[in-house]
Amino acid sequence: MDRYSRPVYFYETDKMAIVHNANYLRIFEEARLHLMEQAGVSYPEVERGGVLIPQTEAHINYKNTLRYGDTFFVQVKLVFYNGIRMKLEYEIRRKGDEKLIATGYTGHCFVDENTHIPLNFRKKMPEESALMDQLLLESGKQD
Amino acid sequence: MDRYSRPVYFYETDKMAIVHNANYLRIFEEARLHLMEQAGVSYPEVERGGVLIPQTEAHINYKNTLRYGDTFFVQVKLVFYNGIRMKLEYEIRRKGDEKLIATGYTGHCFVDENTHIPLNFRKKMPEESALMDQLLLESGKQD
Amino acid sequence: MDRYSRPVYFYETDKMAIVHNANYLRIFEEARLHLMEQAGVSYPEVERGGVLIPQTEAHINYKNTLRYGDTFFVQVKLVFYNGIRMKLEYEIRRKGDEKLIATGYTGHCFVDENTHIPLNFRKKMPEESALMDQLLLESGKQD
Amino acid sequence: MDRYSRPVYFYETDKMAIVHNANYLRIFEEARLHLMEQAGVSYPEVERGGVLIPQTEAHINYKNTLRYGDTFFVQVKLVFYNGIRMKLEYEIRRKGDEKLIATGYTGHCFVDENTHIPLNFRKKMPEESALMDQLLLESGKQD
Repeated sequence: MDRYSRPVYFYETDKMAIVHNANYLRIFEEARLHLMEQAGVSYPEVERGGVLIPQTEAHINYKNTLRYGDTFFVQVKLVFYNGIRMKLEYEIRRKGDEKLIATGYTGHCFVDENTHIPLNFRKKMPEESALMDQLLLESGKQD
Repeated sequence: MDRYSRPVYFYETDKMAIVHNANYLRIFEEARLHLMEQAGVSYPEVERGGVLIPQTEAHINYKNTLRYGDTFFVQVKLVFYNGIRMKLEYEIRRKGDEKLIATGYTGHCFVDENTHIPLNFRKKMPEESALMDQLLLESGKQD
Repeated sequence: MDRYSRPVYFYETDKMAIVHNANYLRIFEEARLHLMEQAGVSYPEVERGGVLIPQTEAHINYKNTLRYGDTFFVQVKLVFYNGIRMKLEYEIRRKGDEKLIATGYTGHCFVDENTHIPLNFRKKMPEESALMDQLLLESGKQD
Repeated sequence: MDRYSRPVYFYETDKMAIVHNANYLRIFEEARLHLMEQAGVSYPEVERGGVLIPQTEAHINYKNTLRYGDTFFVQVKLVFYNGIRMKLEYEIRRKGDEKLIATGYTGHCFVDENTHIPLNFRKKMPEESALMDQLLLESGKQD
């Protein structure tokens, strides 16, 4: 499981003085793309291959709040991948007290850059797909 | 069920040329606060009463995409309310072809402005709470 | 001069409980594209013609603050246009007390969609360019 | 001059496939608060002292574009500080080819947390103010 970390930005807070709820999907995205890059699957490279990976589903459970001054880390894990669809799970914790801030998951498919029609990533980019398979395998071992 | 509508803003798009996935939570928020205001529960008024309504859960199913040039509308419905928690459901459709773009729901609780400790909205703001009860009743009738 | 108006969204506020400073550029953009559309120059149409209009300069003077619950309007005026570059000026006021919230301007050029190389909008899209010339003329008359 | 660096986030791009113009003010903010923290003036600490530092002016010159996959760094310098107002200058460059992406400046004042009335930071927080004076001195030496 990859561990992604950064401080809260001031502009991410809202008038409740906490990180606004919509920003968690942005944080999930940062962590997800970081995980893939660590696994050798660069998203700019995927795009150059003519593939986009839109989000099809998202779920968030907000457990605690993040404030300006906090640093968080995200544990992200690929829990499903079959070339057609993938699913990732996330845990956001505050650095320091390790307090659980939020959990969630996102679902994705693979589509053609121009037509936005779903495709099989295994066939379209076999090398990158093999790296995703390996990532899935490693995630399973961690449980 | 309330119907909230506006055009897509250019800055809401990402490099896939579609409205970025995180913005759907912002759109849900716009529609939710609009519904409450239509029902007579002004959120600025709620805040002046010392109450905040943070999000505890969110779910989105992305069915189709919105692009710059599109106008969307949101149907939003209060499906649960008991003074402690509430839940709302959302449907985003494109204006014109009425295409279903996304569905989802959000969960919320009521907390004290200063301590962020959960409270009973029925006891804290009985008048506004009665309006929420009425909103729930009307939502049920629409099914 | 066009008048664009909408309420402040909750998520636009920051922990100072005011609309975050970066959102003013988004509001300028909304008002600018609205003005062009009112003048008959639809930005989606411009894009379909292979032209993008990136921002080359921006300036904002923050005079007062906007809060959640406020509605604002923007007066926007095209003050320069020659087919190569254009400049617009903005005034944001709060609805109700008409208080001046911010003033500013933005500069733009016209570029090819694919190469991002500057082009002459007069030559590329003469019909839309004529509408921009007329908009400039009308703006001058208002002074 | 402080050097702040991070990669572009996917969600910062717009449908032109470049970082959206409004995000530069967010990047300026990240770099500014980082500079102050490096100088020993923690913004959360300033807030606990009852002081807010709103933006009064902003200017951006967009020279080139940032894309997803790019990493940028920001050089930020305090060029004016007198306890009442301050001004900072920024240069954003792309990591790798060192290409100049944008320049700009922001102006700020110091206000009371509750009343939002301007105050003298020298008198209100003398220790932090001395650190700002030192930061200004060091910035001057770098020219």
